[in-house]
Amino acid sequence: MREAAARLTFRDPLIELVHGAGGKATRRLIEGLFLPLLENPTLAALADAATIPLDGLRLALTTDAFVVRPLRFPGGSIGELAVNGTINDLAVSGAHPLGLLAAFIVEAGLPSDVLRAETEALARAAQQAGIVVLGGDTKVVEHGKADGLYIVTTGIGLVDARAELGPERVRPGDRILITGPIGDHGITVLLARGELDLEADLVSDTRPLTPFVAALLDAAGPGLRWMRDPTRGGVATALNELAREAGVAVLLVEEALPVRDAVRGACELLGLDPLYVANEGQLLAVVDPSVAEAALAALRRVPGGELAACIGEVRTEPAGVVTVTTAYGGQRVIDMLVGDPLPRIC
Amino acid sequence: MREAAARLTFRDPLIELVHGAGGKATRRLIEGLFLPLLENPTLAALADAATIPLDGLRLALTTDAFVVRPLRFPGGSIGELAVNGTINDLAVSGAHPLGLLAAFIVEAGLPSDVLRAETEALARAAQQAGIVVLGGDTKVVEHGKADGLYIVTTGIGLVDARAELGPERVRPGDRILITGPIGDHGITVLLARGELDLEADLVSDTRPLTPFVAALLDAAGPGLRWMRDPTRGGVATALNELAREAGVAVLLVEEALPVRDAVRGACELLGLDPLYVANEGQLLAVVDPSVAEAALAALRRVPGGELAACIGEVRTEPAGVVTVTTAYGGQRVIDMLVGDPLPRIC
Repeated sequence: MREAAARLTFRDPLIELVHGAGGKATRRLIEGLFLPLLENPTLAALADAATIPLDGLRLALTTDAFVVRPLRFPGGSIGELAVNGTINDLAVSGAHPLGLLAAFIVEAGLPSDVLRAETEALARAAQQAGIVVLGGDTKVVEHGKADGLYIVTTGIGLVDARAELGPERVRPGDRILITGPIGDHGITVLLARGELDLEADLVSDTRPLTPFVAALLDAAGPGLRWMRDPTRGGVATALNELAREAGVAVLLVEEALPVRDAVRGACELLGLDPLYVANEGQLLAVVDPSVAEAALAALRRVPGGELAACIGEVRTEPAGVVTVTTAYGGQRVIDMLVGDPLPRIC
Repeated sequence: MREAAARLTFRDPLIELVHGAGGKATRRLIEGLFLPLLENPTLAALADAATIPLDGLRLALTTDAFVVRPLRFPGGSIGELAVNGTINDLAVSGAHPLGLLAAFIVEAGLPSDVLRAETEALARAAQQAGIVVLGGDTKVVEHGKADGLYIVTTGIGLVDARAELGPERVRPGDRILITGPIGDHGITVLLARGELDLEADLVSDTRPLTPFVAALLDAAGPGLRWMRDPTRGGVATALNELAREAGVAVLLVEEALPVRDAVRGACELLGLDPLYVANEGQLLAVVDPSVAEAALAALRRVPGGELAACIGEVRTEPAGVVTVTTAYGGQRVIDMLVGDPLPRIC
């Protein structure tokens, strides 16, 4: 349980890129600097979305800053990511998105057509998800700041009455499902920068996860325990957070992990592990073993979910640790992301 | 009424600082670029906060990006501003703040102590306003970007059952009230940059406006028609928006406008008009003439409201125009802010 874990401290003298990478350093920043100052039970849950009770309903709220570089990449762009990323934080909290607010921080000198294109992308993504943009704000900063455009979106939703999710609900024996191949987004954005002499036939996996969540709620019912979209820090970091927060062990089966050849190849060349690479359209779910098969079948029936897989299970020991069984029968421990191999990925 | 006004077009090839100044260019950007793409009735109202009905309640939501430079200035700082600015957008919508989300975009190389100090300022302001920080996000961008720190806050609140506010409720004869002296914030921040050889004994007016709104709701009841906090673009711009949206004339009395000597002096030296300078702790309210006296008395009883004043009234003609009567009996038209004399003020 979260309360049992020792609070991390933060003594780094400067904020560095690594503090934004979503891994260990981010966790230290959040637990060592932000939480002690902003302490309250809702924030301390560190969920993808905050849930507050209101008049018998459960309101879900989440905010996300998007600073991806470049602004456009194969399969997506910042405007579209700013909608799907926030919708997905609501979705993995079991919430149906109601609406969105968007704040734009624009660099002076940005061609208006770029801002228009990203607003169009944002509008299109919102429309596809069936939500409206309720409000916004625009600030302009001097040329040379803000890399063209940052977008911060806030989503509001209502938690599905069936959703009872949280690390405290996870039990040994539960199965771990994923909706599709990992690492596509991070590698796509990295290659789109053109700084590496490397090409791959790859697009970002950015998409709304709401259809997958609906399928899981239908198929698994109360057997659905926990969900997360493994963005910054990748699958490894998300599952380490689960292991730590739930006080359980996570055992992954390497052969079961869906990874495209192009991602595997790029990762090998770059010395990266796909388990740490960011995803923008994948969902990790923990389900009761009795409903695991039905839940996996339901995910595979969702368009785009054909490669969904069961990638491991929850164990008792060693508590707080994620281990992967390799194809050769060996085991290695998978820690949270350390360092920042892929800055500015979302 | 808003629907009657001709839609502005946006053809500027580049985004410039002026588009973030809160005046005419901002209006063109919003109406010419954002609104046509994001069209929906809630957004089109262009209110300080979006109001959505939920289960018999009225939920208010607002988001604001803070890019003020320098991060600290006499009387306040970005962390504190990020709370009060957002609370005030809720307050002028007649909403009681429930909670806040905060997204931090941090420049790599920022001393951790600066981030800690601003988080403390944010926490203190939230505590003083009686709200909690429900969630957040942190991104780090490369050194040289983001000027140290940008903060985007989103506020959620519940609209007071007594509040029925909107430009469509404003009637000729209504009185215009303000909670105190204008221009303090903008001039304070400008001088804090140290780029001008000018000093003044002045602090920002940043504060939560919730006590003033509570006083107005009590004293004016349904006679309270409209409220706005005149931040970017100042009192002149806020009242021009009112005149345009309500299809009325606004007549101000120059002598009645509370302006501190230090602000007046700095404005004269810098060629600025205090009516266009940003405020962070003032509220404009339009009230029925029958309750104007009681409402003004109520504002003056709020600590910090001693200099509240009635500064003008609503007229029929010329519709859409703000005019000021000078001390010498002359009249001049006060347009919306054109240009950007004070970039990065909030």
